[in-house]
Amino acid sequence: MVKTSITKVEPNKLVTKGYKQDELMGSVPYSHVIYLLLKGELPGKKEGKMIDAMLVSGIDHGLTPPTCLAARAIASSGVPLPTAVAGGLLSVGDWHGGAIENCMKILCGAVEKMKEEGKSPEEMADPLLAELKEKGQRMPGLGHRIHTDDPRTKKLFGLAKDLGIAGDHVALLEAIKAHFDKKGKSLPINVDGALAGVACDMGFDYKLGKALFLLGRAGGLVAEAYEEMTRERPMRRMYTEDQEYDGPEERALPEEYQE
Amino acid sequence: MVKTSITKVEPNKLVTKGYKQDELMGSVPYSHVIYLLLKGELPGKKEGKMIDAMLVSGIDHGLTPPTCLAARAIASSGVPLPTAVAGGLLSVGDWHGGAIENCMKILCGAVEKMKEEGKSPEEMADPLLAELKEKGQRMPGLGHRIHTDDPRTKKLFGLAKDLGIAGDHVALLEAIKAHFDKKGKSLPINVDGALAGVACDMGFDYKLGKALFLLGRAGGLVAEAYEEMTRERPMRRMYTEDQEYDGPEERALPEEYQE
Amino acid sequence: MVKTSITKVEPNKLVTKGYKQDELMGSVPYSHVIYLLLKGELPGKKEGKMIDAMLVSGIDHGLTPPTCLAARAIASSGVPLPTAVAGGLLSVGDWHGGAIENCMKILCGAVEKMKEEGKSPEEMADPLLAELKEKGQRMPGLGHRIHTDDPRTKKLFGLAKDLGIAGDHVALLEAIKAHFDKKGKSLPINVDGALAGVACDMGFDYKLGKALFLLGRAGGLVAEAYEEMTRERPMRRMYTEDQEYDGPEERALPEEYQE
Amino acid sequence: MVKTSITKVEPNKLVTKGYKQDELMGSVPYSHVIYLLLKGELPGKKEGKMIDAMLVSGIDHGLTPPTCLAARAIASSGVPLPTAVAGGLLSVGDWHGGAIENCMKILCGAVEKMKEEGKSPEEMADPLLAELKEKGQRMPGLGHRIHTDDPRTKKLFGLAKDLGIAGDHVALLEAIKAHFDKKGKSLPINVDGALAGVACDMGFDYKLGKALFLLGRAGGLVAEAYEEMTRERPMRRMYTEDQEYDGPEERALPEEYQE
Repeated sequence: MVKTSITKVEPNKLVTKGYKQDELMGSVPYSHVIYLLLKGELPGKKEGKMIDAMLVSGIDHGLTPPTCLAARAIASSGVPLPTAVAGGLLSVGDWHGGAIENCMKILCGAVEKMKEEGKSPEEMADPLLAELKEKGQRMPGLGHRIHTDDPRTKKLFGLAKDLGIAGDHVALLEAIKAHFDKKGKSLPINVDGALAGVACDMGFDYKLGKALFLLGRAGGLVAEAYEEMTRERPMRRMYTEDQEYDGPEERALPEEYQE
Repeated sequence: MVKTSITKVEPNKLVTKGYKQDELMGSVPYSHVIYLLLKGELPGKKEGKMIDAMLVSGIDHGLTPPTCLAARAIASSGVPLPTAVAGGLLSVGDWHGGAIENCMKILCGAVEKMKEEGKSPEEMADPLLAELKEKGQRMPGLGHRIHTDDPRTKKLFGLAKDLGIAGDHVALLEAIKAHFDKKGKSLPINVDGALAGVACDMGFDYKLGKALFLLGRAGGLVAEAYEEMTRERPMRRMYTEDQEYDGPEERALPEEYQE
Repeated sequence: MVKTSITKVEPNKLVTKGYKQDELMGSVPYSHVIYLLLKGELPGKKEGKMIDAMLVSGIDHGLTPPTCLAARAIASSGVPLPTAVAGGLLSVGDWHGGAIENCMKILCGAVEKMKEEGKSPEEMADPLLAELKEKGQRMPGLGHRIHTDDPRTKKLFGLAKDLGIAGDHVALLEAIKAHFDKKGKSLPINVDGALAGVACDMGFDYKLGKALFLLGRAGGLVAEAYEEMTRERPMRRMYTEDQEYDGPEERALPEEYQE
Repeated sequence: MVKTSITKVEPNKLVTKGYKQDELMGSVPYSHVIYLLLKGELPGKKEGKMIDAMLVSGIDHGLTPPTCLAARAIASSGVPLPTAVAGGLLSVGDWHGGAIENCMKILCGAVEKMKEEGKSPEEMADPLLAELKEKGQRMPGLGHRIHTDDPRTKKLFGLAKDLGIAGDHVALLEAIKAHFDKKGKSLPINVDGALAGVACDMGFDYKLGKALFLLGRAGGLVAEAYEEMTRERPMRRMYTEDQEYDGPEERALPEEYQE
C-alpha cells in the first residue's frame, strides 16, 4: 500500500490537495498551484505575487549557464524537445542553483538559534560566520561571477519588504552582507541568496530550494532548446564565446502590466 | 558566432525578449513570462488567463503516469531532487503528452486547407478522417484510459469560448468528435486534444506541443519526488496497485479566488 | 501480467537469457554478454571479437561532441557522477550516432530487395541512391566534419572482412561510396556508416543502432565526467576552443595485447 | 584553456590514453578499454578478467530495480531508446549502487589506518564498526532484500582470490561479516559490498564506485528498454507484481566459454 497526499484520481474527477483541478483551472494561476503543491495551501495575494517573482527570477540567463549549455548540446543532437529540456535540468546541482538549498539550511538553523538566544540579526551574523569558518565552509548566496549588484536580488528583497514577507531570514542575510562590507570584503547577495532568504521567510522546506530554481528555469530551457532546434544547424560547433543577442530591443512593459 | 533572441546578459542587467527581468518580476506572472518566451510577446489579459489554465491542466495525475512513476523510481534511489524531476520529464513522449503535438500538426494543416477550400469544420471532418484512415493513422487527442468525460477538457473549451479564444481549430476538433458520435463510436476529446485545439487557436507552433504539457507537469513532479523522498523508504517496492489518497479532503476554493 | 525474456530472478539465483549470472561472470567478457542481451545468443569467437571492436569504436572523441559537452556541463554543476553520464547519453540522437540506425534501416531494406531482384551491390547502388534522392533524403553514414579517412572505419571493415563477417551490407555500402567517387563527389564512410554495415551483416535489429554507439560512449563519458569533477573548477567557463591534450604520449600496445 | 588527459583528436587520428583507437579496436576488449579509461593503464590479464566479471555482475536484475522501472516507464511513453536508457541510469544513486562508493570510502580509509596501526583485518573490524555506530552510520555493502547468499558475491570473491587480486580490503570486509556472524546478526555481503572490496584492492578511486555499477547496468537497460518498446503496448499499466520470465530455459555455457 502506498499513500499519497497529492492527487486523488477517479474517473472524470481529479482532486489536487483538496481542490478539483477543473476548479483550479481558470481561477488560480499556475504559479499559485505550484505554491499549493509545495506548501499544502493556496497562497494569499501577497505570497502569490511573491512566488511569481521568485519563479521569474530564475527563468533565463542567456547561453552560458550549464543548464542552457547542456540543453542546447542535447537539442543539437536530434532528440525530442523534452529530452533536451530535461537534460538541461539535470544541471541544477550543488554549484548551479544549489546555493539556495544550502543557504536556506543555514539561515533556517541560525534564525532558530537566534530566537532561542534572544539575539538580533546583527548580533547573530558574527558567531554564525565564525562557526562556518571553523567548519571550513563558506556562506553560500554571496558573490556572482558577472553581477556585482544583481537587479534580481534588489527586486526580490524590495518586493518581500513591500509585501510584508521579509522577516528574520532576510534580515540575517543582510546582516551577513553588512558584516563583509565592514571588513572591506564587500560581496553582493546573489539571486540564490535572495531566493533563500525570502523562501525561508515564507516557510518553505530547504529541501525544495533547488526546485524553486528548477521550476523557473524550465520555462527558459524550453525557449533555449526550441531556438536551438529551429534556428541552428544540427551538431553545430558549441564552443564559442562569440555570442550576440538579436531579440527585441529593450522596451517598457505594456500598460496593462504597469501598476 | 551564435545569435540568440532570448536573453541579453550584461553585468547587472538581464533583458529577456526586450523586458528587463527585474521589471517582469513582481509585475508579470510566471505563466505570462512563459507565454512571452514561447510566442515572443506578452499575453493580453485573456490569453494570460488561458495559458494559466493550460499549464494547470497538466499539473498532476496521481501515481500511475510514466512521468510520475519514473520520477518516483529515480527519487527512491537516493539522488538529488532535480535528477528525479528531470528523469520524470524524460517520459513526456509520443504516447504521453505527445498527442498534443500530433493533434496540433493535423489541426493546423487541416484548418489551413479548410479555409482555402471555403469549407466549414463540419464539412472538413469527414475528408480529414478519411485521409488519416488511408494513411493508417488515427486521429490523436480522442479517448482516455480512465476518463470518459474529462473535466479538464470541458474547462479548457469552456474558458476558450468565454474568452473568445476558441476558433476554427477547436471547432474542427468538435466536428471530428461529432463525426464519431454519429457513427456510434463516441470518443471523448481528451486533455491533450483540448490543449491542442486551444493552442492552435492561440497560434502556438505545434513543435511546442509537448512543452505545454511538460511545463505544467514539472510542478507536479516536484511534489511527487519530494513526497517520495520525505515520506517513503528508499528503494521501496514500487509495483503496487494498492494506492490511497490521504491528502486534504475535497474543499471549495478560498473566496479570494472565486470570481 | 507482464512477461520478460531477459532475467529470471529468484532468491540467490539470477538467470539471464538462460545462463546463470555467476557462470557468465569470469567466463564470458562483458561485451559478449551485451551481445547475448541484444541477440539472444552468445557470440562465437569471431562475433565476440567484432562486437568488442564495435563498442571500442564509439568510446570517446574528445571534448567537442554533444555527448561530452552535455556530460561535462552537468558534471560541472555539482551533481552525482551518474547524473552527468546519463545526461551526456541523452545526446545520442538522430544527428549524433543516429546515422547508424538510419543507415541500417536503409541497408537492410535494400539488401533484401537486391537479393529478390538478383542484383549485385554495384547494380543496387544507383537505383537506391536515385530513390533516396527522389524522397529528398541523403544517404546516412557518409562524410565527417573532421575525418576524411576515418581510421575506425578502416579497422571495422578490415576486421569484418578478416573475420568473414562482412557480407552484402558492407559490400553495398562500399558500392555506394564508389558511386560517389565515380561522380567526383568523394565522401568517406564514417564510423556510423561502418558500424551500420557491419551490424547489419551480423543480423542486429536496426532499432538497436543507437544503442551500439551509446554503450561504447558510456565508458568515455564516465572518464570525461570524472575528469571534469576532479580536475576543473565548478561552473567553469565551458565556451572555449582552446583545448590541449596532456595525457600519456602516444605509445604501442603492451606485448600481451599484440598478436 | 582547458586540458584533457583522455583523447587527442586530430584529423584521421584518435589517441586515447596514448593508444591509437584503431589499434585498441580488434586487439583490446571493450572492458579493458574501460579499465584503461578509469585507471590510466591497460589491465594485465588478471585485472582484465576481473573487470569483466565486475561489469557483468551489475548487468541486470529483472523488472523490479528502479533503474529498470524508470527505463521501462520512460520507454513506454514513446521516446528514443537512448532517452529511456539514460533515464534508467539516473536511478543509480545513494540507495541503488551507491553502497559501492560508500563502502569503498570506508574500506579504503580503514585499511590505511589498519596498516599504520599494524593491525590485522580481524583486529580492525571491531573498532571500525564501533566508530561507524557512534556516527550513527551503518556499514554499507551488507544485506539484500532478496538474496541471503548472493551468487555474484561468491563469484567475485572467488575470482579475486584465484587471481591473486583479493587483499586487505576484501579481507577486512570478510572480517566485518564475521563480526556480525559472531553476534548472531548474520548479514550476507551483497554484490555492492563485494564490488567495493575488490575495486579497492584493485586501486580504483572510490569516486568511481557508482560508475562500476552504471557501466554494467547500461547493457541490461538497453535490453529492458528494447523489450518494452518492441513487446509491450504504449503506456501499459506498470504497477503489477504479476511478472513471468519466458526467455530461454536454463542452460550450460557453450563449450568454447568453458575452461
